[in-house]
Amino acid sequence: MGSPDGNSQAFQLRLRTGRRVAGIKDDLVTDEIRKNFASDNVSPACPAVMEAMMHANDGCVGSYGDDAVSRTLNARFGDVFETEVMVFPVVTGTAANSLALSALVAPYGAVLCDQSAHIGNDEAGAPEFFMHGAKLITLPSADGRMNPEAMRTGLRLNAQGGILKPPIQALSLTQATEWGTVYALPDIAHLCAIAHEHDIPVHLDGSRLSNAIATLGCTPAEATWKSGVDVLSFGGTKCGAMAAEAVVFFVNERTRPALKDFERRIKRSGHMWSKARFLSAQLLALLDDGLWLKNSAHANAMAQRIVDGLRRHAGVQLPFETQGNEIFVIAPDRLVEELAAAGYAFYRWPTPEGVSGTLIRLVTSFYTRAQDVDALLDEIAA
Amino acid sequence: MGSPDGNSQAFQLRLRTGRRVAGIKDDLVTDEIRKNFASDNVSPACPAVMEAMMHANDGCVGSYGDDAVSRTLNARFGDVFETEVMVFPVVTGTAANSLALSALVAPYGAVLCDQSAHIGNDEAGAPEFFMHGAKLITLPSADGRMNPEAMRTGLRLNAQGGILKPPIQALSLTQATEWGTVYALPDIAHLCAIAHEHDIPVHLDGSRLSNAIATLGCTPAEATWKSGVDVLSFGGTKCGAMAAEAVVFFVNERTRPALKDFERRIKRSGHMWSKARFLSAQLLALLDDGLWLKNSAHANAMAQRIVDGLRRHAGVQLPFETQGNEIFVIAPDRLVEELAAAGYAFYRWPTPEGVSGTLIRLVTSFYTRAQDVDALLDEIAA
Amino acid sequence: MGSPDGNSQAFQLRLRTGRRVAGIKDDLVTDEIRKNFASDNVSPACPAVMEAMMHANDGCVGSYGDDAVSRTLNARFGDVFETEVMVFPVVTGTAANSLALSALVAPYGAVLCDQSAHIGNDEAGAPEFFMHGAKLITLPSADGRMNPEAMRTGLRLNAQGGILKPPIQALSLTQATEWGTVYALPDIAHLCAIAHEHDIPVHLDGSRLSNAIATLGCTPAEATWKSGVDVLSFGGTKCGAMAAEAVVFFVNERTRPALKDFERRIKRSGHMWSKARFLSAQLLALLDDGLWLKNSAHANAMAQRIVDGLRRHAGVQLPFETQGNEIFVIAPDRLVEELAAAGYAFYRWPTPEGVSGTLIRLVTSFYTRAQDVDALLDEIAA
Amino acid sequence: MGSPDGNSQAFQLRLRTGRRVAGIKDDLVTDEIRKNFASDNVSPACPAVMEAMMHANDGCVGSYGDDAVSRTLNARFGDVFETEVMVFPVVTGTAANSLALSALVAPYGAVLCDQSAHIGNDEAGAPEFFMHGAKLITLPSADGRMNPEAMRTGLRLNAQGGILKPPIQALSLTQATEWGTVYALPDIAHLCAIAHEHDIPVHLDGSRLSNAIATLGCTPAEATWKSGVDVLSFGGTKCGAMAAEAVVFFVNERTRPALKDFERRIKRSGHMWSKARFLSAQLLALLDDGLWLKNSAHANAMAQRIVDGLRRHAGVQLPFETQGNEIFVIAPDRLVEELAAAGYAFYRWPTPEGVSGTLIRLVTSFYTRAQDVDALLDEIAA
Repeated sequence: MGSPDGNSQAFQLRLRTGRRVAGIKDDLVTDEIRKNFASDNVSPACPAVMEAMMHANDGCVGSYGDDAVSRTLNARFGDVFETEVMVFPVVTGTAANSLALSALVAPYGAVLCDQSAHIGNDEAGAPEFFMHGAKLITLPSADGRMNPEAMRTGLRLNAQGGILKPPIQALSLTQATEWGTVYALPDIAHLCAIAHEHDIPVHLDGSRLSNAIATLGCTPAEATWKSGVDVLSFGGTKCGAMAAEAVVFFVNERTRPALKDFERRIKRSGHMWSKARFLSAQLLALLDDGLWLKNSAHANAMAQRIVDGLRRHAGVQLPFETQGNEIFVIAPDRLVEELAAAGYAFYRWPTPEGVSGTLIRLVTSFYTRAQDVDALLDEIAA
Repeated sequence: MGSPDGNSQAFQLRLRTGRRVAGIKDDLVTDEIRKNFASDNVSPACPAVMEAMMHANDGCVGSYGDDAVSRTLNARFGDVFETEVMVFPVVTGTAANSLALSALVAPYGAVLCDQSAHIGNDEAGAPEFFMHGAKLITLPSADGRMNPEAMRTGLRLNAQGGILKPPIQALSLTQATEWGTVYALPDIAHLCAIAHEHDIPVHLDGSRLSNAIATLGCTPAEATWKSGVDVLSFGGTKCGAMAAEAVVFFVNERTRPALKDFERRIKRSGHMWSKARFLSAQLLALLDDGLWLKNSAHANAMAQRIVDGLRRHAGVQLPFETQGNEIFVIAPDRLVEELAAAGYAFYRWPTPEGVSGTLIRLVTSFYTRAQDVDALLDEIAA
Repeated sequence: MGSPDGNSQAFQLRLRTGRRVAGIKDDLVTDEIRKNFASDNVSPACPAVMEAMMHANDGCVGSYGDDAVSRTLNARFGDVFETEVMVFPVVTGTAANSLALSALVAPYGAVLCDQSAHIGNDEAGAPEFFMHGAKLITLPSADGRMNPEAMRTGLRLNAQGGILKPPIQALSLTQATEWGTVYALPDIAHLCAIAHEHDIPVHLDGSRLSNAIATLGCTPAEATWKSGVDVLSFGGTKCGAMAAEAVVFFVNERTRPALKDFERRIKRSGHMWSKARFLSAQLLALLDDGLWLKNSAHANAMAQRIVDGLRRHAGVQLPFETQGNEIFVIAPDRLVEELAAAGYAFYRWPTPEGVSGTLIRLVTSFYTRAQDVDALLDEIAA
Repeated sequence: MGSPDGNSQAFQLRLRTGRRVAGIKDDLVTDEIRKNFASDNVSPACPAVMEAMMHANDGCVGSYGDDAVSRTLNARFGDVFETEVMVFPVVTGTAANSLALSALVAPYGAVLCDQSAHIGNDEAGAPEFFMHGAKLITLPSADGRMNPEAMRTGLRLNAQGGILKPPIQALSLTQATEWGTVYALPDIAHLCAIAHEHDIPVHLDGSRLSNAIATLGCTPAEATWKSGVDVLSFGGTKCGAMAAEAVVFFVNERTRPALKDFERRIKRSGHMWSKARFLSAQLLALLDDGLWLKNSAHANAMAQRIVDGLRRHAGVQLPFETQGNEIFVIAPDRLVEELAAAGYAFYRWPTPEGVSGTLIRLVTSFYTRAQDVDALLDEIAA
């Protein structure tokens, strides 16, 4: 499958001007093999996003979100998600998660989430900061996907603590999960139903939601509110933006209280851009013509290409099913060192107990091409 | 004085390609009069900044600031400020101020500042949030510039409160002030000396520092650390960036403790960009060839042009000396309504006691041209 | 007027047993002149309170407030205040004020209060801590009593700030005020009406409410909810308790949301006593037979005795009307030094501008006897 | 072993006066069997403590800890612990734990503790509140006693997270543990050594330290600082006080920074009593003649009496060794119901997986007499 980052207009421009227009890269220009599989946030922004920011850099407009570009966000996201939404762009996923949770949970409350959740492992305590000390109560799982019975048990044990235990006031799920797995929609719906049964709203960390939607072949609505999700952290940076995420509220009885004063929370955390159109423009560019989903479908395909290749290699194991764009591999230490020496970038995960070798993670993005995957597989085979 | 936003390269490009390159605007293209004087953050980003972001969109680099562009920040700022600095880019001035203060002040402490300070009036309580409840203790002044005797009295009265009063652990000054005035450097130095005498570090809100430097004709070093400033909120967005500010620590005994774990504070507040090079690139573009100072010198000149014109108009008063790029005008209500009706944007400030008419604020930027000023003055005269 | 701390039962006991029962003091026992006028919290607990704690020390009872003594609090306070209340005992006034405000104000909000308020001057930032960074917005006044026009102006200016300014979500008044003055009830009612007009609930810091009620000759109901007060910090320690205060909610539409999870807030701040009956017993002892009001009426009388005496002294001024149990005196420095040298304890207040001499504060309590006042006046006359 | 709450002086007094002196109970007076085994905080205060509070109710003294009684705390605790200490009395264990940890851990930091720790299970999130959002990182254990290898692993995994994970800045151990077990001193020393190796100070939750000391037969110094403990939450309420705990700092290089401004933290949380002598008096009464240890030795003995009796009963299991004053019993549901019906009070703990019956907890105190234990055992046997 070819890369979606080609830009025929840029190519044309180059031919005529004889010089490369900064940033609007033509992949034909670079023959270099791309070796950075550390994350989907190491890539550049995709050209459509950069162009949109250029177009947005047009004259004076009201600041603080009161501009034409920003105003279309609710409408456009509403189209894509097929329901009434309120959209609040912010610059990082950490800010999106933390702001969303702070609007759902009192300082004396708690959030229920999987043990692997990004909010509990990779955000330096940001959710607890924004929530003024509220706790994260975590449940272990086999592969990042929360089990409904474990959820019921967790809710019951916590409630038994009476006033000695912070009350659980939000459920936070991650789709696709931090272990690269994807919940089937009925499973999301089941967990949301249990939460709602307990008057608990549901937040979805959708940093890689687009990868999950691409995998499931469902609609954005089916992946979220139709399955019971109340608030979504919409991830843009990992599927092509420069820096753009959004807190998306699906307007209903559970979210109305959370929406109150939400803009004050954003301003108070230093996350309100004066030139907000530059955030909004990136998001609109991603939604345009489903670019966000195309970018992620491509990333998923590249991930499967890697998986197919690895399956032919005897020495490695794949502890989790690769259902998105993250591939977890347990490889012999020697192979891992050789890959690193060859210039490949990837994270080494703490190896599970009783396993020899090193657990590493490879991540693909819209920027990963077939030749890059093939080169990686060749290196591994060697 | 001509506008510094011309771009001969863009002009060349346009001539050759026959089409306007998105975002790299040629001011010759637009004849429209610009009427938005509401703030210096309504303007577009200046072309050099947008170009720099385009160049930064180049292949995969390490995320989280571990990229070549970001690594040059300390060196480049060090050159400009002629001393050892640690630079931390963030996306808004509110975040810069709040993060800086949180590293200087314990949750049980307090910050001393002027009554007009942005941190106490326009940041929705962000400093108090980041400082976990620490207080702002404000001193009134005639025009935004703190008086040393008032400062000594404020420190003394607070200390007399013993443990009943949060101890003042930082002094925050604004240069240029919120009322558009500029401290003379000996005055900054005097206030910093009093602070240091009390073991209190000094933070400078430099959202419009470039305007002050342009007015004073001093060096960045003289405007800051040589006058006793320990930490600076470096403002980029108001002098041409898309969205870029930085917390700049001047490394010394007072700032070493504050530097500890500063990156953790940034991450924890959701302000760490994965693609950090896009923040850094904007800052480096502004420092390049003193563009930040040129942009602000131009803005100041446009402001003086407005002031000169207003002085010829009988019906308005200028309550504060215009020393930067903000002009405060008390104008008859009727004139104010007419300006608004004519499409001009500006803030209406609460009018001081015992004054008739409305206090408004006009702000110029690098994007304000002589013809825009003249059109405004014509409208006022009419 | 005699002291109410006589205890005929103790006297009888002493006669029969030939030994003094620890703590149940007979004032006839002590001839020593009492010289500590620093505060009404330097006195011992009054005998009825100590006896009540002894009686409460009876066998095992459920902890955490689930005991017979604690359960009668709502009923007993309900009788005294003639309405439905929810009462939450805590050990300090700072905790009562801070907990009450934290239930009314969001972290991104603000409290409106007088510049002299205890919450803003003497609680080390506790309200801001409990409210997670919410701000106190203060209004100046002549004598601690808020002016309704200043209040309307303060509300209007703050609202004009839009999302840049934390919204005022509670009004906190102090009765009697920190300057020893007492609001007339119609004035309290007026301020409460303005607050309610803006959907803002009213908190009353009633650390010295009993002194105000004694002065006004009104009922507790008239002093509080009938005048519009929604939540009261009931002060016990200053009118005879060992250490006992309470947050008293007058149950209505404004307070129902604040009551939600209030016990969780108390537990979370370390203020929930396992042996809660010892807190409750003190409060019930104070309410019994109106002891709290009798103690305060006596304190007020002793304060008036001081005032009458001081009026005969040429060299001192009384800048505020003494309407409770606090007397503010501007006395010549020499006199102040002599009083201190003679063993008298009192606070020296920062002297107002342009006044010579020192501003001191004398405070009376149930423990102040006529002979103690007379001795003080003699010392001053000498 | 006889109960230490007899009071021959009270008995004498009763005989002579013909009436019972409130609070100074003679156990001969009550024949009623005591059935409340829910906690050691359901008991009354022991007589010596109540007497001490009576004696402290003596005239006017300076408030805020500046009184003779309070000043002796450091000296007296210094004697008992055989080293230089700084003692800060507070009213609850939750406040002691939370204040201590807030002085050791930055808001962006974390505390390492056992999964069973009171701070993480029974304090409604108070530590997180006082620490402004810092996290508790918990390690599972078999019986509440942390394993050194698990500790090393926990430290290593957390450090690998770099700035994505809050840095562990304190270790909190509980002695005796929440499961009623007692660490051997070399085990405490080992854990402290690992912590100090990582520049991490050690906090000990000593709510039941006296029970542990009684069990170990060691000195207070050996149980704490000689084993590496830096800060202690000294528990008084469970061994005889009305309501009194203390944060005890063992003065050394690790604790000096934490001591800075500690009183401000106390005031700011509403935990500074104006009549502080009433807190101090309770603590001094407990230390007097080792009363705290005698009370706990008695409680331990009563617990062993229960254990000995239960061992003769076929139908119950004791999942944890009873090394203090808490006995955990897994009993058949029917027996548990019968005990409850017979008026016995006790907590039902969540039963471990795969076990039939109910896990309950019985707690003894200084107030538990041999006849009370025997009656309980009879009831169980029946």
